[in-house]
Amino acid sequence: MSVTAMPHLPLVEEIDEATVSDLALGATLLGTGGGGDPRVGALMAQAAIREFGPVRVVDPQAVGDDGVVVPVAMIGAPTVILERIPGGHELDLAMQGFERLQGRPVIATMPIEAGGINSTIPLVLAARRGLPLVDADGMGRAFPEVQMVTLGAGGAKAWPLVLADESANVVSISGARDNASAERLARAAVVAMGGSAVVAHYAVDAQLLREWAVPHSVSLAVAIGRALREARAHGDDPIAAIAPVCGARRLFSGQVVDVQRSTVAGFVRGRLTLKGLDVDAGGRAEVDFQNENLIVRSEEGVLAAVPDLISLVEAESGQPLTTEGMRFGLRVHVIGIPASPLWWRPEALPLVDPRAFGYDIDPIRMEDPR
Amino acid sequence: MSVTAMPHLPLVEEIDEATVSDLALGATLLGTGGGGDPRVGALMAQAAIREFGPVRVVDPQAVGDDGVVVPVAMIGAPTVILERIPGGHELDLAMQGFERLQGRPVIATMPIEAGGINSTIPLVLAARRGLPLVDADGMGRAFPEVQMVTLGAGGAKAWPLVLADESANVVSISGARDNASAERLARAAVVAMGGSAVVAHYAVDAQLLREWAVPHSVSLAVAIGRALREARAHGDDPIAAIAPVCGARRLFSGQVVDVQRSTVAGFVRGRLTLKGLDVDAGGRAEVDFQNENLIVRSEEGVLAAVPDLISLVEAESGQPLTTEGMRFGLRVHVIGIPASPLWWRPEALPLVDPRAFGYDIDPIRMEDPR
Repeated sequence: MSVTAMPHLPLVEEIDEATVSDLALGATLLGTGGGGDPRVGALMAQAAIREFGPVRVVDPQAVGDDGVVVPVAMIGAPTVILERIPGGHELDLAMQGFERLQGRPVIATMPIEAGGINSTIPLVLAARRGLPLVDADGMGRAFPEVQMVTLGAGGAKAWPLVLADESANVVSISGARDNASAERLARAAVVAMGGSAVVAHYAVDAQLLREWAVPHSVSLAVAIGRALREARAHGDDPIAAIAPVCGARRLFSGQVVDVQRSTVAGFVRGRLTLKGLDVDAGGRAEVDFQNENLIVRSEEGVLAAVPDLISLVEAESGQPLTTEGMRFGLRVHVIGIPASPLWWRPEALPLVDPRAFGYDIDPIRMEDPR
Repeated sequence: MSVTAMPHLPLVEEIDEATVSDLALGATLLGTGGGGDPRVGALMAQAAIREFGPVRVVDPQAVGDDGVVVPVAMIGAPTVILERIPGGHELDLAMQGFERLQGRPVIATMPIEAGGINSTIPLVLAARRGLPLVDADGMGRAFPEVQMVTLGAGGAKAWPLVLADESANVVSISGARDNASAERLARAAVVAMGGSAVVAHYAVDAQLLREWAVPHSVSLAVAIGRALREARAHGDDPIAAIAPVCGARRLFSGQVVDVQRSTVAGFVRGRLTLKGLDVDAGGRAEVDFQNENLIVRSEEGVLAAVPDLISLVEAESGQPLTTEGMRFGLRVHVIGIPASPLWWRPEALPLVDPRAFGYDIDPIRMEDPR
């Protein structure tokens, strides 16, 4: 069981206002501490659905060959993004710019990442333009850097890439030496645009989508959110509630005794120290993060590491926690979720394994619980 | 008599290899110390003309309504530009990118500035694509900043703006809050592209061209270059040779006794101190520059200031000098040339008067010598 392999995941066919709430809750867990709190983005998506109607969701296997699927997202420093949640206008500008550069019609949109605020941004575009949303994404979670995307590992190009902001500035990259160059150029433009922007990029055709997008991650986020909501309503154990949906397991339970956090080069980096609760007979654990949680270590060694998902939930309520929400004294469960098997392909793993984040350790794969 | 008003300026109808040499020499004078030494650009233009044939020159009054005229140039730090003189490939990429963003056909190109290396770059594109070159530009000289362009004062937009480099990175700005925003975004992208790029921008239609481009500045550069070349061949006074062409006059003659120069925020800023030759009965003068010469002052006060042109020539040979070519002991004439009357229109003057460069003095207009 993993982010992609669950056989009985209920697939979402349409997203209405109520579904957005579950999606946002599940995306907070899949955000693994980063990606921003999606509730603000959820309010925007709900407003768009109220105005333009619900969003149709299509299976990645059912997308036709008559055009391209274009992911849209916010790019920039998370703190700035949350201050500048986009209106629909920037999304319209980004798509207009994209269509001018791309010969093929845009037949659908999708999230570039399944966690955090970018899980809800594409819903705004989809509702406004009557586009379907593909039930997939390019990470199966959130990652801090744009090139950390399965689509790129499969050969998708980051360009044409279009950035738009609320002042109607529109910057495009229509050619680049490689995806890393496109990323570097885009980052420079985003800084000049004030620190955040809407981005349309990594357009994929049906074949690349089928082979390299993480399938059913929209449905997964909704299922996780629904399970967490129902567990809370019934006072059930949140981890037990989501385990059948995503293969989640408890890695450690503890109380926050230290939070180190600094903003470096547009990323929030830091370390969380936990003192074990009685349930584990004490001990300590540390969680390192760069926007997202990267690795969790106890006195017994590494408990989990990227690309597998490391998420924290508040022990009592099961509420998923973002890095910004951490504070001294909080009692939390550390949850591990196996990453999409796509990340373990040889083309993809070097983009996101521990070494990609500066840890001199070999990748450790969380076993499937079945 | 001024940069634009000479009634008997011989108009150039075609530019062949020999004409490029005169154009580059004249453009060094109109570069007023900046814009880079156009001889390297001249070699590129000559190579393109050798391969693709001479470039047809059209009068700005004769440009039709069936498309737009697109200036192309190099943008970036002058020192980097001279190390990265573009091949034709970047110009092709910039124009392809431009045509994708601009609905109207490109019917001609022209220089954005009449001085320095950017006077010859458009010839490379014109030769490669069989496009005519309009006998005009957007400054009638060189200026250090992109928004210092008559076309912008007349309402032309800087965007669509397309940047391309030798690694085939192509960055476009297809919308902006205003020309200053477009400039800021373009500068950020140019820095990320390694410090210089080819740019296509400030496209104009026939009406804007007629009203706001500086007319006949290509012919003027060629006429100045020819006059300087012939004066040197015959041992004639260079200033007397070019005076009938452009209204040039000698402002000061002196020996360089000090050169202060520093590179700040991508500009070369500094001051040149001259000790007067006997012809002026001694005295001192100072020339301040920001890439281009901005103001010349003697003990008697301001002799000339932007937007009028302040150029230096080597006293013996009449060779126009760039800021980089200045050195202790050099004997020079300081020449003033009246700016295009377009710069004295109220919409345009604030872009380039002494206050635009931080001098707290009112504009001083060089009188026409007749």
